This record gives sequence, structure tokens and C-alpha cells, in this order.
Amino acid sequence: MPVYSYDHLYTFTFQVFKSIGCSDEHATTATTGLLAADLRGIDSHGVARLSGYTRLWEAQRINAAPNIQIVHETPSTAVVDGDAGLGLVVAPFAMQVAIEKAKQAGTGWVSVRNTNHFGIAGHHAMMALSHDMIGMAMTNASALVAPTFSIERMLGTNPIAVAIPANRQPAFVADFATTTAANGKLEILQRKNADTPLGWVQDKDGHPSTDANILKKQGALLPLGSDREHGSHKGYALGSIVDIFSAVLSGASYGPWAPPFPAYVPMPENMPGKGLGHFFGAMRIDAFRPADEFKEHMDNWIQRFRSATPAEGYDKVLIPGDPEREMEAVRREEGIPLVETVVEDLKAVAGKFSLSF
Amino acid sequence: MPVYSYDHLYTFTFQVFKSIGCSDEHATTATTGLLAADLRGIDSHGVARLSGYTRLWEAQRINAAPNIQIVHETPSTAVVDGDAGLGLVVAPFAMQVAIEKAKQAGTGWVSVRNTNHFGIAGHHAMMALSHDMIGMAMTNASALVAPTFSIERMLGTNPIAVAIPANRQPAFVADFATTTAANGKLEILQRKNADTPLGWVQDKDGHPSTDANILKKQGALLPLGSDREHGSHKGYALGSIVDIFSAVLSGASYGPWAPPFPAYVPMPENMPGKGLGHFFGAMRIDAFRPADEFKEHMDNWIQRFRSATPAEGYDKVLIPGDPEREMEAVRREEGIPLVETVVEDLKAVAGKFSLSF
Repeated sequence: MPVYSYDHLYTFTFQVFKSIGCSDEHATTATTGLLAADLRGIDSHGVARLSGYTRLWEAQRINAAPNIQIVHETPSTAVVDGDAGLGLVVAPFAMQVAIEKAKQAGTGWVSVRNTNHFGIAGHHAMMALSHDMIGMAMTNASALVAPTFSIERMLGTNPIAVAIPANRQPAFVADFATTTAANGKLEILQRKNADTPLGWVQDKDGHPSTDANILKKQGALLPLGSDREHGSHKGYALGSIVDIFSAVLSGASYGPWAPPFPAYVPMPENMPGKGLGHFFGAMRIDAFRPADEFKEHMDNWIQRFRSATPAEGYDKVLIPGDPEREMEAVRREEGIPLVETVVEDLKAVAGKFSLSF
Repeated sequence: MPVYSYDHLYTFTFQVFKSIGCSDEHATTATTGLLAADLRGIDSHGVARLSGYTRLWEAQRINAAPNIQIVHETPSTAVVDGDAGLGLVVAPFAMQVAIEKAKQAGTGWVSVRNTNHFGIAGHHAMMALSHDMIGMAMTNASALVAPTFSIERMLGTNPIAVAIPANRQPAFVADFATTTAANGKLEILQRKNADTPLGWVQDKDGHPSTDANILKKQGALLPLGSDREHGSHKGYALGSIVDIFSAVLSGASYGPWAPPFPAYVPMPENMPGKGLGHFFGAMRIDAFRPADEFKEHMDNWIQRFRSATPAEGYDKVLIPGDPEREMEAVRREEGIPLVETVVEDLKAVAGKFSLSF
């Protein structure tokens, strides 16, 4: 697999965002956010999505020069209108609002409408860490998930990220889709021509399936838990909470009306709100107890869990964020491998904007 | 199965709480909270637990006359010390603090230390609904759950509840353990002498098990997702977030050091904090958008999801809170059935305090 340095991908991605009309500042923010996914090993959400963003821009679903605004606020809350901007730009704006609110009121909570795909949730949640705050980020997304007992796609993979600072230990960073498996996992299996495990997807009639291409055949992803007996109603509830906090609270479009990511998919009819929705939170640690004390206890928490007795065949128990942090260290050093289809895709993007890749 | 009226169980439970030394006010609050579980069909968390509470009181782990206090606060946050009181009393106090904060600052977030088992999370979250607020409640609990890749019990079933108001539709009320199955589900199977499905528990060596009594043999409950391939690392992360928000943020005892519910289990050594921990949130809807507008959209959300195409063999898609609300309507009318072992247990409690059941 060809490998590219972070700097190479950064320069190229920055130029692409500039080419569609982003300011230097927005292109920097968007590039940093997009490549955070490649660094952390979430390959489905990094440069592999760049061509998709450009197609949304061509379809006039993304505004490259948005006027992002706070449209309502209280001491600890705000609603932000993203003016149809890149989620990669709107999200850091809104997360910064949450952080500023938390400085004053102890916590800050920002619901966002009229926005687009924001990359990986964890990147935005982690903005809180350097302020000794807990960060949270979530977003709704194109409907690919069938609720428990249903065959209709009603929810996106609606991820939740929570970043919690520690002292000597690295931060706790959970970032996960509220489905059994994220869509990106299906894409990896498609490329390998492999089947999914049972419990990830169902076919159009609601029967269990192992077809990694089932979403192209009106199948659906399953909520975390897979089936009712294994708690899929809990995954469905979690995905619903993300949808409501992100979109119903802000005035974005929710549930099956969430705007689709692929530009060739027509927009839903009778959308009840504007664009996608996100939700961000920041909680100042010392709004609860002294930050040093909390972070000492987080060190203790992390050490205790990391040293929990492993099951046979496993070295150790992982802390949320461990695999992504370890991947980032490797990829900053050794570069980022890209599958051929992504390289071809980026070359096509380069051609479109008279750039070289 | 013998059936008891709500009023009968209310009077008896109130008398028991009075007998251990609760004030009238605290006994009323505790009784209402405990019986909310029986009404809503969460039989494991209702009067079935009453004898357990009395044993914790006998072991001097519950203070029936606590001085519950706010020990730290900002405009949108507080830490509450429950003074080792009943969680059933401490939780409504803390949730009320969250609601008062939200009235002023838009949202309120309260972390609680030095408390005990609080009944069902949903009951506390629902306190926010009549204020046109979204309510949240979570708690840590005795360690029964092994993290992904581990055989050691490190987390409780750590439930999360989120209550969201609507207008003509009943509220959305999610309330779920962050495990594949709650401990109460195992208890039901034990009484029937039946096996669990695969994916609920593992044995002491980490192998899959279907033994409903496996927790008595050093086995463990599995995080939501059941195994790594089906996303158990997400359930483990969720349970961890509940533990950290409830206990590390407040100064309660966390992870494997959470105080055990059964009074005969010795307290863990070297506890890093005081008692159990809870976490509550209240978000005023109109801190984001006009409450009427939001509730209209929630009606639309609920109607759309309820009418999602059902899978073969199912009537309709459920909204979180539907089964519990329907159960409550039936049980208020027809009474609350109790299994014989619970009746025996309550008769023993009655004997202990010279009451009749």
C-alpha cells in the first residue's frame, strides 16, 4: 500500500479546500480536522472523504465561505447556525463556544443546525482537554440504521465522543458509532470481498445478513447490541438521543430526513429542519472538584483498569483512546498508508482543481 | 402470582422507611421512587430491593437521617454530598438542584458522592419533564461487569436515563443498563431455572456462558455489545463514562471499589472516595429553541419513528419509554404482581419492624 507523509497530505488537502473557496483559516481548520482521522487510524473519515466533500460543494450543498453564527444563547448554552458550511469548520467553532461558556458558567452546551459532515467526533471533543475540561461531541448523519423491530433506515451511525483529561496518563478518549459496526468497517470488508460477522447488518426484509454490500440492496446497519435479545433497543435509544440533541434541539433535519452524504443521493423531501445537526459539550473539571485532584484520580482509574486481569489470549485491557493514540504516534513517524482506490480518487480531485497529488 | 395494589405497597414501604428512621418527607420521596420501578415493570429495582436497603441500614452503610448538602457549585454545576443517605432520597435532591441551576443558567449538572443505590434512573430523569427540560440521570454500582478482553469485574451495570418532553405524544424516556442485559434479567432466569442467551455473561475464565447463576461463580456480566466483534468496547466505554461522571467527578468510590449492594459483601479495601456516585443533568429546552416549537418537532419525531416499517412478525416500532408507560397504566389499574420469594422477603421485613404485610 502506498504511504504518504502527513505533511504531503496536509499540503494537498489544504490546497483542495482553498480551491473550493475556503479562507486560509477555514482551510487550516478543515485540513487539521480531516487528517486527524487518518492519523488516528479512522481511515474511513480522513482523506478518503475528500472527494465526497468536493462533490457536495459542486452540488451546492456545502458553502465554502459560511457566516457561522450564534443565533440563541444563555449563560451555559448556545445554538449555532453553520450556514451550510463544512462540518469540519463549523464544529470547531461551536466547540470553542462551548469551551468559552464553560469558562464562565462551569459548563457549555452547543447544538448546531445547518451544517455538514464533521469528520471524527473525537477530534472536536479533544479540544476541551487542554483547558482541563471534559469534552463531548456528537452528530446525526444520513439514515442507514434500522431501529429495533424495523426494516426502515431511520437513523445515522450517530457517533458519540467523550474526552476526559488525566495527569501523567494519556487522556480517556471514547469515540464510537452507536451501531454495532460503523459504516467504514463495511467499506473495508467490501474492498477485501469479505463477509461481515452476523449481527452487523440485516437485509431489506429484516433477516440477518453477512453481505458487506447489503446497504446498496436496501439493507440496514443494526444499532449497537445487534438484536433485541442482545440490547439493540439500547443502541437504538443512544442513536435517537444523538439525533434529538443534535438536530431537534437546534432546528436541523432529523431522523430519516437527515441530508445524505453522497452528493448523488437526492435530498429528502419535506425536511423538517436545516442541514445536519451536531451537539457539543464542555465541562470545566474545577466546576466540580479541583482539577489536579480529579486528574490524579483519573490516573488511578486508568492504571487500575489497564491492569485488570486480562482474558486468556489477551495482553492487557485497553483504555478508550489507546489504539488511536498509538496509531497516531506510528503514522506521524512512518506516514499514512492509503489504499489504491483512495489514491485514484485523490488524483481525480487533483485533476479537477489543477493540483498535483 | 399474588397481586398487590399500589396503595398497599405504598403504605407498607412508607412504614418500613419510617421504621429505619426516615423523616416523613424522606420516607415519601423514597417510597415514591422505589415503587416507580414496580409500576414501570422494572421488578428487580422495586420492593424486591426493600429488604436489601434495610440490611444496608442494619450494617450502618445507610444513614436514614442524612444531612444532604451542596459542597461546591458554579452557575451551571454542583457537587452534592449525600451523607450516606438512601440514593432514593439523595437523587431527587440532586436532580432538583440541577433543575434550579437550569432555570438560571440554561443547564444544570450535578455530580453526587457518598450516596447509595437510587432505584431506577428514569424516575429521576423524568423530574425534568414538567419543567420543559430534558433530564438525565446515571449512577455507578457494584462491580459485576468485565471490560472487553478482561475477566475481572471492574464496572457496575451503570445505567443511563434520558427523558425528553414532547407535546401531544408521551415523553421519550430511555433508561438502560450499559450492559447487554441488566442483572435483574439474570434474576428472572434464575427463578425459572433457565439459561441466559449467549452474549450476556462469561465464566470466571472469560469463556462464553449461559449459566444464569454465573455471577455467584466469579463470572461477569458483559458490556453492551457482548464481544469485541459486536462492539463490547463501546458498552465498556459507556459504562466507564458513567463511572467517571458519577464518581471520579464527585469524589465517590469508582470502578472495582464501588460499594457493593449486598450488605454481606465486605466493603472494598482502600476505597478512593466516599460511597456510590450519581450524575444528573437538566437542560431547559428554551435555552436552545422555543419549547413549543421543540415539542412539536418531538411529536413529529415520535410519530415518524413509531410508524417506521416494522419487520415481519412485529406490529410496530417502539419509542423508548413505551413499554414502561403502558405497564404503569396496567399496574395502577390492576395492581402489582409479586413473585413468592419477594412476598416472603417482605413478610420477613414486616416481622423485623413489627409491621404487617
